[in-house]
Amino acid sequence: MEDLEGGVDFLADERKKAKFDVEAMKIFWAGSQHKFQVADRMARLVASDPVFKKDDRVRLERKELFKGTLRKAAHAWKRIVELRLSEEEASQLRFFVDEPAYTDLHWGMFIPAIKGQGTEEQQRKWLPLAYRMQIIGCYAQTELGHGSNVQGLETTATFDSETDEFVINSPTLTSSKWWPGGLGKISTHAVVYARLMIDGKEHGVHGFIVQLRSLDDHLPLPGITVGDIGMKFGSGAYNTMDNGVLQFDHVRIPRDQMLMRVLQVTREGKVVQSDVPRQLIYGTMVYVRQTIVYDASRALSKAVCIATRYSAVRRQFGSQNGGRETQVIDYKTQQNRLFPLLASAYAFRIVGDWLNWLYRDVTERLQANDFSTLPEAHACTAGLKSLTTSFTADAIEECRKLCGGHGYLCSSGLPELFAVYVPACTYEGDNVVLLLQVARILMKTVSQLGSGKQPVGTIAYMGRAENLMQSQCSVKKAEDWLNPATVLEVFEARSLRMSVACAKNLSQFSNPEEGFLELSADLVGASVAHCQLIVVSKFIEKLQQDIPGEGVRPNAIALVDAFNYTDHFLGSVLGRYDGNVYPKLYEEAWKDPLNDSVIPDGFHEYVRPLLKRQVRTSRL
Amino acid sequence: MEDLEGGVDFLADERKKAKFDVEAMKIFWAGSQHKFQVADRMARLVASDPVFKKDDRVRLERKELFKGTLRKAAHAWKRIVELRLSEEEASQLRFFVDEPAYTDLHWGMFIPAIKGQGTEEQQRKWLPLAYRMQIIGCYAQTELGHGSNVQGLETTATFDSETDEFVINSPTLTSSKWWPGGLGKISTHAVVYARLMIDGKEHGVHGFIVQLRSLDDHLPLPGITVGDIGMKFGSGAYNTMDNGVLQFDHVRIPRDQMLMRVLQVTREGKVVQSDVPRQLIYGTMVYVRQTIVYDASRALSKAVCIATRYSAVRRQFGSQNGGRETQVIDYKTQQNRLFPLLASAYAFRIVGDWLNWLYRDVTERLQANDFSTLPEAHACTAGLKSLTTSFTADAIEECRKLCGGHGYLCSSGLPELFAVYVPACTYEGDNVVLLLQVARILMKTVSQLGSGKQPVGTIAYMGRAENLMQSQCSVKKAEDWLNPATVLEVFEARSLRMSVACAKNLSQFSNPEEGFLELSADLVGASVAHCQLIVVSKFIEKLQQDIPGEGVRPNAIALVDAFNYTDHFLGSVLGRYDGNVYPKLYEEAWKDPLNDSVIPDGFHEYVRPLLKRQVRTSRL
Ligand SMILES: Cc1cc2nc3c(=O)[nH]c(=O)nc-3n(C[C@H](O)[C@H](O)[C@H](O)COP(=O)(O)OP(=O)(O)OC[C@H]3O[C@@H](n4cnc5c(N)ncnc54)[C@H](O)[C@@H]3O)c2cc1C
Ligand SMILES: Cc1cc2nc3c(=O)[nH]c(=O)nc-3n(C[C@H](O)[C@H](O)[C@H](O)COP(=O)(O)OP(=O)(O)OC[C@H]3O[C@@H](n4cnc5c(N)ncnc54)[C@H](O)[C@@H]3O)c2cc1C
Ligand SMILES: [Ca+2]
Repeated sequence: MEDLEGGVDFLADERKKAKFDVEAMKIFWAGSQHKFQVADRMARLVASDPVFKKDDRVRLERKELFKGTLRKAAHAWKRIVELRLSEEEASQLRFFVDEPAYTDLHWGMFIPAIKGQGTEEQQRKWLPLAYRMQIIGCYAQTELGHGSNVQGLETTATFDSETDEFVINSPTLTSSKWWPGGLGKISTHAVVYARLMIDGKEHGVHGFIVQLRSLDDHLPLPGITVGDIGMKFGSGAYNTMDNGVLQFDHVRIPRDQMLMRVLQVTREGKVVQSDVPRQLIYGTMVYVRQTIVYDASRALSKAVCIATRYSAVRRQFGSQNGGRETQVIDYKTQQNRLFPLLASAYAFRIVGDWLNWLYRDVTERLQANDFSTLPEAHACTAGLKSLTTSFTADAIEECRKLCGGHGYLCSSGLPELFAVYVPACTYEGDNVVLLLQVARILMKTVSQLGSGKQPVGTIAYMGRAENLMQSQCSVKKAEDWLNPATVLEVFEARSLRMSVACAKNLSQFSNPEEGFLELSADLVGASVAHCQLIVVSKFIEKLQQDIPGEGVRPNAIALVDAFNYTDHFLGSVLGRYDGNVYPKLYEEAWKDPLNDSVIPDGFHEYVRPLLKRQVRTSRL
Repeated sequence: MEDLEGGVDFLADERKKAKFDVEAMKIFWAGSQHKFQVADRMARLVASDPVFKKDDRVRLERKELFKGTLRKAAHAWKRIVELRLSEEEASQLRFFVDEPAYTDLHWGMFIPAIKGQGTEEQQRKWLPLAYRMQIIGCYAQTELGHGSNVQGLETTATFDSETDEFVINSPTLTSSKWWPGGLGKISTHAVVYARLMIDGKEHGVHGFIVQLRSLDDHLPLPGITVGDIGMKFGSGAYNTMDNGVLQFDHVRIPRDQMLMRVLQVTREGKVVQSDVPRQLIYGTMVYVRQTIVYDASRALSKAVCIATRYSAVRRQFGSQNGGRETQVIDYKTQQNRLFPLLASAYAFRIVGDWLNWLYRDVTERLQANDFSTLPEAHACTAGLKSLTTSFTADAIEECRKLCGGHGYLCSSGLPELFAVYVPACTYEGDNVVLLLQVARILMKTVSQLGSGKQPVGTIAYMGRAENLMQSQCSVKKAEDWLNPATVLEVFEARSLRMSVACAKNLSQFSNPEEGFLELSADLVGASVAHCQLIVVSKFIEKLQQDIPGEGVRPNAIALVDAFNYTDHFLGSVLGRYDGNVYPKLYEEAWKDPLNDSVIPDGFHEYVRPLLKRQVRTSRL
């Protein structure tokens, strides 16, 4: 976005080099003309509103920081209501506020959980309250001692048929709920996952709507201990979120607060499976993980935009006869590190758009009782969540290093971006655990090859196993790699061969589960190869037009301009649209509280005595 | 170190599995019985002193944090003097305080710069003042607009023959000194690097001792603008350091404050080269970078210790019939990610010890006017600095991910360790720039093969080029990889072949500098291969004894116990010696300021109105 405060564009020369239409690319990046306009409008709205200022976050201590987040969330809601924003506009506005808040979990997990797992009656009761924010909810699954293995959760929900209630209890310290965002200080309600117990018998883990705090005075209800779990990675960053700890001491809730879409408990304590299939729950996971892939492209593009612009501003070495030094973006090592990340930002955006289509497709099929594509869609979103988040986390840090020393300053924006982004590798499924799930479907597919069952969706290529196992790489000279069909086939052959090799090794084990454990490192490798293939194939599909002949370098700045990010959103002095980096870095420094006084606190007590003392005793 | 507060050792079973003598390994890790005892004593001294408490750092705002650092630095100095500690003991004590402070630059850069670049007279004048801390110094080289390219610095030191003074000046904004640690708030003096100007003629960049602040009232002297550059990555972390900004407005210093060991300016303004060779300066760089390699092994071992212990405590999946779940350290993927990092911690320690020997060897030779090994020693420390710091930074983050969600909490210690460590990839030479320097000596060596000039030191293997270019890999089956000689030869052949390939491509260019720029990405690859070979060869040299037959798993906990780190030093709830993770995580959470009150600040203004309002206007 054209932010030219001072009127001078220090990157003007770079912008003139572009060999493509930046405005058209902006629309491509946004997804459509309509989406572009919504995003553009919301981004400007946020950027121009002083309440949404965020460049002081890293200097605030926890309480002030958190209070600021509450203020922004309230203000966002106020603007949404005042301006009568549509759901699409509201979600874009919240996105550009760019600060993790309790509202993320309310809209992103609490409401979807009720939608996905609640009966129609439950939805009618709870959703209007939640939509109007008359209650605020969070998603309480993970416990202090239990995360990835949801079946290991210890919290119990015991049916009391006398009173027609469930008794929610935390039997041990490790059963304390731990991590849920919004729980620590704000949520009035939670969807709590607990082990269903009836007459001493266990019936698996299910979700329950539990009120945590009084709607009158916000105090925790009797039997509930709740608080914040403390500081997380970075300053600012995710510390705006009140991830919480929660313990239940025999807290009673009415029976109808168990989410009963797939399993019902009757008044008599009988367990009845509904005709809604369990797999429906996968639908929600596909949804959430698809948004995570989309977010990966947003975080990555942000980091790449900063590093690319700064690399064009920064000069180092190579000056001849007193001329200017070389822009570091002109060094081949810098390009080699940076440009693949830039390409990946675009590739992940394309994959995110496609996953969004996949989610809608799966949803339609589910409504028509067609479950055939679900396992593959589920595996594919799990794998792509893992691949794109791991890659993006590493890439943000690489972008920071690409900015040299100045990337280490908070005013570069990159430290906070890294710190706020990395948990995406862990939440919604640890990335390694997810890859092992992908490996299961790959092994199953390989084992069924030749059985007549045709693999579907992103695994369809395995149906061409015979060809791919034998195909010889057609590359003779370097330029042959520019042929998309060749690249695709190479990725397909590689992925298939890795899966087939694993399957062969697996078949040596009499106990397949043992084999799976033993070979898990190789299986993870095969999953990664498969997921890389998906990214490559979706990217190639989209690249109908020729790639501009002059390569990336002349287009670099234009390619990041096409993200259309405001300086407010980027939050980086190094990534400023106008390239006016140095005066702004200098200005920013003086804002540090240490510069409030010339002589720092503690000088008189702890430094002056050193300087003034005559040391006679030291051996030094 | 045996920290068993509660008396229970939750890792006792793991410790029983060890197949080697942990006490002997502790001495190996420390370097000698003597070094072990010093380190052990200093670590306990620091850990038991409440002034050195550091687990609240992440919760402090900048001013309080910085004040705490001043307090610790003063207290450390007090203890050093009171206990009449030797230089070795003092440096260990400072290390275990484990908090970046202005004293690091005073002892680690200011004093060595004067020692390395000052004349004997200058040393006699300045060093006693510095040793007694009657002055405090920093190292002011980098500028806002100039870092890697030292020859590009803009600060000027102009000789005024009338007054026999140098006039230090910052002609532009980008010439502001920027980054020096200790500069922002504390240093009274600095070694300032500036362009020497005499009668309008330039004589390159040299160091000058400049007083910055009054020794009476600590106020900046006339013509000096100085302050802190603001928040850096992470909370706590490097924010204990006052990295600073500094501008000179024609500040005058006596002529004898130019460091004149290699170049002198006479009273008449004549420039005289001394008989001390310029290369001496490389000696200091070899010293500083060697300590950085050693520090890499310390940071890496710390992260690995935390992740290994927690992986033995954490259980996830695999419970049968209600039994306990599997320790995550038993998953092959976890081992595959963790154990190579554990091995690398040991390898880097061995390399660090060897570099220390190399530094002493080079120093002795320099004193005897033997410069023959210097270029190779210089390249080798530059390359190993780059390799070990890049690897360690990535490895710390991998260790954090290996701890799942809890690794994201500051109480895990890993976020702060990462944030405080990563600048090592940038300071003392950007890691890519350093690898390009290594590439130069590799290319030179290859070009001289067959000329009769035998390559020395770590490049000696290139003398066997003919063999290595033709040798066939002798590996037939997997176990053959356990033969150290095979591994070594493979690494040698790989490194040499990469260098030779680059040299061949380079020779195609009529302008070699152009070729070097064009091929720089490949050259970096060749440098990395060469540095990896050095690590592998030093590791193999040291591994005289057989590797214990049962592999790493049973020895894992013992291998990290051998680092002999106190819980204070580790600063991690997940890495506690006793493995009592969960109750301590729980305790730690409640210390967050957000938990000071049940209702958070801001609730009444910004949340209650949402909950209480009847929204009629929203379209949602
Ligand atoms: C910022 C943040 C926000 C969160 N928000 C919420 C929330 O709102 N609600 C909520 O309920 N939870 C939340 N969580 C919790 C999150 O969902 C869990 O942390 C996540 O599921 C990972 O589980 P874990 O922490 O138990 O990791 P673990 O499973 O304990 O992982 C530890 C290590 O073990 C390995 N491992 C585990 N199982 C296996 C296996 N079978 N095979 C091989 N290796 C294995 C992992 O790869 C990892 O290296 C949040 C977490 C974070 C960090
Ligand atoms: C925590 C910290 C403490 C510091 N302490 C001090 C101190 O006490 N005193 C002091 O004087 N300085 C200090 N510094 C500054 C530090 O020495 C510099 O930041 C460092 O030398 C890197 O230089 P730069 O920032 O100019 O990076 P740049 O050189 O600008 O790097 C930017 C990018 O350009 C690339 N690049 C640069 N040149 C080339 C080339 N020729 N070929 C290919 N790529 C290239 C780099 O690889 C990098 O990706 C400190 C820095 C930090 C972060
Ligand atoms: Ca305060």
